Amino acid sequence: MINRTLVKNLAALPDGPVTVSGWVETVRDQKKVQFVILRDESGAVQLVNPATRELEEGADAAASARLATTEAISALSHGSFITVSGELKHDERVKLGGLEVKIGTLDVVTEANPETPIAADSSLDKRMDWRFLDLRHPKQALIFRIQTTFLHALRGVWVEKGLIEIHTPKLMASASESRAELFEVDYFEGKAYLAQSPQFFKQMAQAAGFGGVFEVGPAFRADPSFTSRHATEFTSIDTEISWVDSHDDVMALHEELMVAGFTAVKEKHGAEIAELFGVELEVPATPFPRIPLAEAKQIVADRGYVIPRADDDMDPEGERQISAHVKETYGHDFVFLVDYASSIRPFYHMRHEGDPSLTNSYDLIYNGVEISTGAQREHRIDVLVEQARDKGMDPEELEFYLDFFRYGVPPHGGFGMGLARVLMLMLGEQSIRETTYLFRGPTRLLP
Amino acid sequence: MINRTLVKNLAALPDGPVTVSGWVETVRDQKKVQFVILRDESGAVQLVNPATRELEEGADAAASARLATTEAISALSHGSFITVSGELKHDERVKLGGLEVKIGTLDVVTEANPETPIAADSSLDKRMDWRFLDLRHPKQALIFRIQTTFLHALRGVWVEKGLIEIHTPKLMASASESRAELFEVDYFEGKAYLAQSPQFFKQMAQAAGFGGVFEVGPAFRADPSFTSRHATEFTSIDTEISWVDSHDDVMALHEELMVAGFTAVKEKHGAEIAELFGVELEVPATPFPRIPLAEAKQIVADRGYVIPRADDDMDPEGERQISAHVKETYGHDFVFLVDYASSIRPFYHMRHEGDPSLTNSYDLIYNGVEISTGAQREHRIDVLVEQARDKGMDPEELEFYLDFFRYGVPPHGGFGMGLARVLMLMLGEQSIRETTYLFRGPTRLLP
Repeated sequence: MINRTLVKNLAALPDGPVTVSGWVETVRDQKKVQFVILRDESGAVQLVNPATRELEEGADAAASARLATTEAISALSHGSFITVSGELKHDERVKLGGLEVKIGTLDVVTEANPETPIAADSSLDKRMDWRFLDLRHPKQALIFRIQTTFLHALRGVWVEKGLIEIHTPKLMASASESRAELFEVDYFEGKAYLAQSPQFFKQMAQAAGFGGVFEVGPAFRADPSFTSRHATEFTSIDTEISWVDSHDDVMALHEELMVAGFTAVKEKHGAEIAELFGVELEVPATPFPRIPLAEAKQIVADRGYVIPRADDDMDPEGERQISAHVKETYGHDFVFLVDYASSIRPFYHMRHEGDPSLTNSYDLIYNGVEISTGAQREHRIDVLVEQARDKGMDPEELEFYLDFFRYGVPPHGGFGMGLARVLMLMLGEQSIRETTYLFRGPTRLLP
Repeated sequence: MINRTLVKNLAALPDGPVTVSGWVETVRDQKKVQFVILRDESGAVQLVNPATRELEEGADAAASARLATTEAISALSHGSFITVSGELKHDERVKLGGLEVKIGTLDVVTEANPETPIAADSSLDKRMDWRFLDLRHPKQALIFRIQTTFLHALRGVWVEKGLIEIHTPKLMASASESRAELFEVDYFEGKAYLAQSPQFFKQMAQAAGFGGVFEVGPAFRADPSFTSRHATEFTSIDTEISWVDSHDDVMALHEELMVAGFTAVKEKHGAEIAELFGVELEVPATPFPRIPLAEAKQIVADRGYVIPRADDDMDPEGERQISAHVKETYGHDFVFLVDYASSIRPFYHMRHEGDPSLTNSYDLIYNGVEISTGAQREHRIDVLVEQARDKGMDPEELEFYLDFFRYGVPPHGGFGMGLARVLMLMLGEQSIRETTYLFRGPTRLLP
């Protein structure tokens, strides 16, 4: 590896020789002295060079080198990657971190095209066109460090509990959720479909006796909508566990995972999040408030908002309203809306014993937006077939899935959660486009 | 949650009341006593019930209950999921773990269809048809516990080093590797393609200044071959790091990851692997042997094997031969074949300075099979465009990718590795079908 010191590690070093590598954020090319702000993945540092603008008569090789360095700095374009060896000097007058590096040698590793196609005020769409430049901003890059920490914390919980990591196929012979949002693939002589969720396959693991599984992977929805919360491809966080009594057990696991994730993120990135996003991250208290959907709708109605839907579901404004109510009443950013009506839930959600109009299911709302759906699944084959028919589905087409329930299966449940939505709401961002590495939508397949 | 004790935890409990839940592996229904082997995700335990075959005159309710339990056990079908509460008794005469549970109450949670469609000697294809039953076997299930441990160890290394987890899009506007193996997707009014690898996007992260990234996710190859090493969808382990001097730096990271993964797997599952697979897992010593490809081909030729290929590449038998040579000579299961010819490497591999016929690349061979390809990438835009042309590619079609190199990019490299292949070779399995949760091939999309 190129022998460099990460910028964040400079502060702990004594004055003396160092090598740093990164890209040029700014150049201030003054007559007598030149300043370069160099950034790497860990931070930014000021480089300084006393300018040598011309050679005196009889100048030596060292003077020539100084002139060359000065000219190289003058020619530096924003974004170029450079390696600089020089002298580290701690100096509290330097605003940026109280230190600077006096340039000895400068190596331009890759020169950037001087015309930078995006600026700080470019539109989101333009920034997405040039996502690799957009991601150089510390704020944007931090999102993916947070993602890393969040997921690692979740996996720590799963592994500790003995859950098994699976990688379910994304190529399927038929729909896992609804036909409407299905992408079709040319598959040799026939057709395949892209998985809308790992739902069927994580349930299969329960029939296989795995006890509990998790997966973080892509899911695909041929959803033509252009909202700030939808993508045609997104990263889904999925888990499914056996031997649940009800969806309460799924919610308990869900809470534990969120607390672990938020705790790790706050610990590792809390200060940076406050600085760059202006957000004081809070680790949510458990248990999260739970409100039956019917009650939530009443609360929203009492607040004066009429949900303009014919079915039994909430709408995005309703979710914002109930979230505001929970925040005002309980001071909590999260709320489980529970016991959704069967009419608006998929056939595989278990229905209440004694009241088949309701399901053992929930949505998790965070800062006003739904981030997850969870449920206990129906594991009794006769009931499951009945519920599929009830939804107008053809059990013939579901045979491979229904087979999972014909050779014994424990009661089970789980949830799926959109990673980009969690990050968006955690950081107060306006769109999942900001919290997705490379967004995919109906009109966006590039870069 | 249903309040149960995992079977593996019974040994540490004193004699007394316990509840266990799992599926019925076998029933021995003798006249006077009944035995059930119950298995859960952690192990198997013997349940015992003194049979009550008929009621005497004036029998009490308890006797009726005993009769009912006896009859329920007689009727138990293999595979049914049950919950049993009873008395744990340690008894060293019991072969299975030196303990048994005397059945108090038995609850049949889900009854299995009594006709089990697969048996121990079923063909692999038949077992794949009924994968959820196949995975109930301890040997098959262990593979996915090993997978979990292996990946968690790798991620531990990456996170410790500050690498960033990314989730690259699987829907692309054009090919990432070769047109030949591309799946086409109907994408709204147009077409998209499934990513053959995250190659372009993990390189994008280097241009974005991320420093280093990793991803474990699906990759798709419309490969019509039916070998034991190929799938149309597989889980790819990918990493890419900035500021490498050459492919040597990539190999050093690769070794470190393998050692961490194997160490964790050996520690957690070594005994079970020995028992179920007959394999004494070895943590590989570092550095792994490195042999230039040209030299490897000479060694193979000297062993008397003529590689039947017109190009400069190895073939599978050649890989087995060189692996055998390395095992005999260095006692090592791994070997890096380095410096592949440019003619058989993709356009984005960096070529040797001074000898453009060779690349800064390697394949990692493990127990005779290639599991990974790694390389330093060409980051100089002019050279990269030239190499693309040299391979007959149209730079126009690669514009979005080539842009990554026009605004500054550090030297970088990385590798991609097939998870199922590593597991197959680690456990001495014959096919990646055994080490893939749900295999996908030209004629397999179900379940």
